[in-house]
Amino acid sequence: MPAAQATRAYVECLPVRFFKSDNTAAVSDEILRAIGAANNGAALAYGADRWSDALDAVFGEFFETPVRVFAVSSGTAANSLALATLCPPWGTVLTHAEAHIERDECGAPEFFTGGAKLSLIDGAGAKITPEDFTARLAWFEPHVHGVQPRMVSITQATERGAIYSPDEIRALSDIARERGMTVHMDGARFANAVVAQKFSPAELSWKAGVDVLSFGVIKNGGMNTEAVVFFDPTRVGDFEFRRKRAGQLACKGRYAAVQLTTYLESGIWRRNAERANRLAARVAAAAPHLLSEPFATNQVFMRLGDERIAALSKEFGFYPWGPAGSGEARFVCSWDTPEEDVDALCAALERLR
Amino acid sequence: MPAAQATRAYVECLPVRFFKSDNTAAVSDEILRAIGAANNGAALAYGADRWSDALDAVFGEFFETPVRVFAVSSGTAANSLALATLCPPWGTVLTHAEAHIERDECGAPEFFTGGAKLSLIDGAGAKITPEDFTARLAWFEPHVHGVQPRMVSITQATERGAIYSPDEIRALSDIARERGMTVHMDGARFANAVVAQKFSPAELSWKAGVDVLSFGVIKNGGMNTEAVVFFDPTRVGDFEFRRKRAGQLACKGRYAAVQLTTYLESGIWRRNAERANRLAARVAAAAPHLLSEPFATNQVFMRLGDERIAALSKEFGFYPWGPAGSGEARFVCSWDTPEEDVDALCAALERLR
Amino acid sequence: MPAAQATRAYVECLPVRFFKSDNTAAVSDEILRAIGAANNGAALAYGADRWSDALDAVFGEFFETPVRVFAVSSGTAANSLALATLCPPWGTVLTHAEAHIERDECGAPEFFTGGAKLSLIDGAGAKITPEDFTARLAWFEPHVHGVQPRMVSITQATERGAIYSPDEIRALSDIARERGMTVHMDGARFANAVVAQKFSPAELSWKAGVDVLSFGVIKNGGMNTEAVVFFDPTRVGDFEFRRKRAGQLACKGRYAAVQLTTYLESGIWRRNAERANRLAARVAAAAPHLLSEPFATNQVFMRLGDERIAALSKEFGFYPWGPAGSGEARFVCSWDTPEEDVDALCAALERLR
Amino acid sequence: MPAAQATRAYVECLPVRFFKSDNTAAVSDEILRAIGAANNGAALAYGADRWSDALDAVFGEFFETPVRVFAVSSGTAANSLALATLCPPWGTVLTHAEAHIERDECGAPEFFTGGAKLSLIDGAGAKITPEDFTARLAWFEPHVHGVQPRMVSITQATERGAIYSPDEIRALSDIARERGMTVHMDGARFANAVVAQKFSPAELSWKAGVDVLSFGVIKNGGMNTEAVVFFDPTRVGDFEFRRKRAGQLACKGRYAAVQLTTYLESGIWRRNAERANRLAARVAAAAPHLLSEPFATNQVFMRLGDERIAALSKEFGFYPWGPAGSGEARFVCSWDTPEEDVDALCAALERLR
Repeated sequence: MPAAQATRAYVECLPVRFFKSDNTAAVSDEILRAIGAANNGAALAYGADRWSDALDAVFGEFFETPVRVFAVSSGTAANSLALATLCPPWGTVLTHAEAHIERDECGAPEFFTGGAKLSLIDGAGAKITPEDFTARLAWFEPHVHGVQPRMVSITQATERGAIYSPDEIRALSDIARERGMTVHMDGARFANAVVAQKFSPAELSWKAGVDVLSFGVIKNGGMNTEAVVFFDPTRVGDFEFRRKRAGQLACKGRYAAVQLTTYLESGIWRRNAERANRLAARVAAAAPHLLSEPFATNQVFMRLGDERIAALSKEFGFYPWGPAGSGEARFVCSWDTPEEDVDALCAALERLR
Repeated sequence: MPAAQATRAYVECLPVRFFKSDNTAAVSDEILRAIGAANNGAALAYGADRWSDALDAVFGEFFETPVRVFAVSSGTAANSLALATLCPPWGTVLTHAEAHIERDECGAPEFFTGGAKLSLIDGAGAKITPEDFTARLAWFEPHVHGVQPRMVSITQATERGAIYSPDEIRALSDIARERGMTVHMDGARFANAVVAQKFSPAELSWKAGVDVLSFGVIKNGGMNTEAVVFFDPTRVGDFEFRRKRAGQLACKGRYAAVQLTTYLESGIWRRNAERANRLAARVAAAAPHLLSEPFATNQVFMRLGDERIAALSKEFGFYPWGPAGSGEARFVCSWDTPEEDVDALCAALERLR
Repeated sequence: MPAAQATRAYVECLPVRFFKSDNTAAVSDEILRAIGAANNGAALAYGADRWSDALDAVFGEFFETPVRVFAVSSGTAANSLALATLCPPWGTVLTHAEAHIERDECGAPEFFTGGAKLSLIDGAGAKITPEDFTARLAWFEPHVHGVQPRMVSITQATERGAIYSPDEIRALSDIARERGMTVHMDGARFANAVVAQKFSPAELSWKAGVDVLSFGVIKNGGMNTEAVVFFDPTRVGDFEFRRKRAGQLACKGRYAAVQLTTYLESGIWRRNAERANRLAARVAAAAPHLLSEPFATNQVFMRLGDERIAALSKEFGFYPWGPAGSGEARFVCSWDTPEEDVDALCAALERLR
Repeated sequence: MPAAQATRAYVECLPVRFFKSDNTAAVSDEILRAIGAANNGAALAYGADRWSDALDAVFGEFFETPVRVFAVSSGTAANSLALATLCPPWGTVLTHAEAHIERDECGAPEFFTGGAKLSLIDGAGAKITPEDFTARLAWFEPHVHGVQPRMVSITQATERGAIYSPDEIRALSDIARERGMTVHMDGARFANAVVAQKFSPAELSWKAGVDVLSFGVIKNGGMNTEAVVFFDPTRVGDFEFRRKRAGQLACKGRYAAVQLTTYLESGIWRRNAERANRLAARVAAAAPHLLSEPFATNQVFMRLGDERIAALSKEFGFYPWGPAGSGEARFVCSWDTPEEDVDALCAALERLR
């Protein structure tokens, strides 16, 4: 069984210092404590509890606009349900060739949408430029022989650690709007993108034209709940039926909702992201000449060469990146990466000079 | 939006004593503590952690046979992924007309399987008899015009609180086996069914011919993780790809796996189920002449009439059952139903005599 | 390979006189000649030819109202595409338990709709009564846990040869309309139903509340094209994308469209159906005491008993009907059933008295 | 309704001489006559007729090996059913970025496969080289996070008129075989590719490693039937269930099968393709310096510039090709393109010099 074998292969010895991904992090105490506090007596199931009921208000305040918010169990589910709600099976979602929805979700968007196609766009930093977006759109014709562009999905921060500014988002959403397309943002690391810029969550989402946001919590201190945020309530459509049908409506909804509200209300969304970004900045600064991507958030990409990668791998856990032989590596800092692990990595990188 | 409105309608005032469902229960302390203990430092994501790694062994011991076990976030996902792995899109799953997979999952089995049909069988207690199973099978012909029977799914305990004995399961699985069909058991309340009988988990599952079991944890003290248990490792097939593709592979897998292992190792699977069954037995004994189903596990069905239902509803939260006007009601006890709530319900029922 | 073997098993010796189905009939000369006449020089593909362009007008005249008409290659495709256009994946189509879409299309509706469930209703003559329709609807609740009733599909004439009157259709469509559901009619034998009554095609379809009709041509003299007729152009929605995506948009569209227009304009729709019904009436009259269904169109159902079935099978090709041991048989006359075959069958049936 | 409007937009005035596509051609007399001859009395439906029964033998002789052959109503259905049979939903089909299955089937492969992804490869002439194939494969990793490469699909002749030699096919199929992948060939213009080379149908298909072939008939003289040819009978799997479920099993199977057998037995497959290729060769020779692709079959690609395209469009029907502003045009000759139309086009092209 290839999948099983592959999973086992992931199990490595843990003595190394970890920079593989922010998904290896633990859960913030604030969230664990809030779960404990909610664990008190009966609560109606399937979202009819007071924690779930508070979601729209808490997120509405965070985003400074009325929103509809839904809890799901994974980022893959968040992305796929958002796309399935707004893209018909014969539609296509334009996205970057390195997007998580294309590369790392085993075809979940195609599964949830009933076979909508992802149409790929290249571009530095895993970002889509207006020019590339427009050029890709030129391939589609308004007849039944081809799929029809209905959505664009961008990632904030991107899979290569870059960020979109409000103006950059607006440039894309304007093009989309003109074509009758909607805009999805994969915000698995949205908090990291917010704290890396001087803009508010609102400015980086709906004010710039985003219709639906996969709002990431797990990588930044959550346990097992992400949020799907609709900025235009009229776009929610049949989302709730699709969520239930996907087995993504939590039975004991309070334990999902309380993670989301605590994440915002306790301020850990900002504190955790700031710490992760700050640590990553130290890593980037340790060997700036090796950076293969401009540093922006909590991911650091370096062109190390295969030999250095092999050497560093003895002490540090991280992923070689890109196709075999590229010599590139990715280091990710998370909200709970030990400071001494960063010290050690910086020292090792400085020795490479 | 009909769905949203319906969800809101679920929010009722909570001062009533709750017998609506075991899914309103809280999480057992053992599980919360185990989650806290696992929240320590980094762990590889997506199931490559030591808690996930222990799943097969812990469940293998529980079931006295080698098994393959997979964590998912809901019973709906457990059922649907199990069916999708073993039933092709052009196949059909025979099941009871009142089965959860037919009535309460918004078509999730059809979604996950790519459109496999559920073919329904009636029967008292939401149980399938060998005779009814055989009669239903007679409708299918081995040609391309009709869907082909590939699985049978039974619920243990059933949606009407009944249980299958090992002999009853075997009678069905023998018929299935002869037709080349596999056997799925929806064990959302498997623990309640086990403690209600003198048989072991093994005798009530694989020894009686069950191929794959949706093993329920959430209703009986878990937080948000269920298990899919394959008793024949060669049947696992592409389950892992399907799970990932459904957004059901937990990012931080340790928080899912530890719920499952703790549930078995701490013994709460038995202790919680015994308590729930015991409390329900008290409810059933309070008005035995009103029982509309023989009492067996932690669900009690009574024919009260609409007036008594209205009267009881002022003090107790429970569901009228069946079609409108049936006058039937369902009371469910959970692992944490307060003893005084049961006292009060029993007293109220006794006053009905 | 079970399917292949089953197909082969269908190949029987042909010397018998055929009453198996109207799908064993040949193609009417009018249609073959029209195909030949259209086979002249170039014509734009994919429906941009003048024959395809005429479809809406020709059918509009036939139905006395503006319509949108689409050619597809099979009745299964017609039904499934109509349902997929009007029923979301989380919806359900209420239909009779013996409906062709449930029993004879290998799950095509589930495939095309993305897993919408068919919810079954019993009833004599394979007909749905308003009472049974209403009772079945009572099972569904407007929350996300269950599929939502979005369509009802009735067959005209039914799978047991019965017909719906305009009043009967209206009674069902009124109920549907009130629930926000649309009405599909499987008219594989629509012409037989029309000529069996004193009502017009309009009275038996849109005037009685039908939204979309699978208009059968193949069984009544066509070659390989059926029509999907939308009576409300605003309901067409994304039908054309779905048709293309299903491989059901004919490349050389003229050879499809010309079958449809010729079928109506030549009058063979009526002439062929009248002949088939007339022959079937003779069969029914030969043994009226054996009829297991009231006679109405071109199908005759008789309770013969297994011995008589075996005896008749030596000379006549027909299907035993219903579950094994029912002793029922179906005889179908088609537009080209030889008169002498009917003579022989009538004589044989009369000998049974 | 965008699709409908688009379809209408296709309707152009026909006085122009047509080089748009070989799908505007009529049906060969041999096929019409064979259909007429088959239109004689009753024949069992759904492929249980003697014409359908002959398919395997007739194609087996043509390909010099035992095959399993299935009739479907379109090339889109042929391709999609072939892929769905051999590629699981979580698999991916590697194919050229300009492949018909990617660009011109409105997502049909995704629909039929249940959401399998097409992974695209660039390359001159719409051909895939072994180097590009290997490079694209390097992106996939054997774990559950990404789709798994299970098939490669190549087009013969390609969407830019090029052909694969047996050695070129073998080079690709060897790579596929090593990875456990199967090989699909979209042979919408297979006959044109065969007559353009000195190799046999066997050498250009199974002998070079092709597992399943979409065998095109419609563009080269057929009416509305294509064939799916499995060279390894053990690969047929559940194809027949999938075909029925897609509404692609013809009711009156004889009219489908007889097109396929006549196409081969009458020799029109070769005669028609030779004529189409010969005429196209004349077009190519009329302005060889303008060719934007090497000439090989019945499609001619020229870099004309937008002004010349506009000028020629007054007299000739053809498609501008590629993205807007490319200045490229495609001329296709079919089996029945009038010789004088080619004379006129050649003269016009020569005047461009």
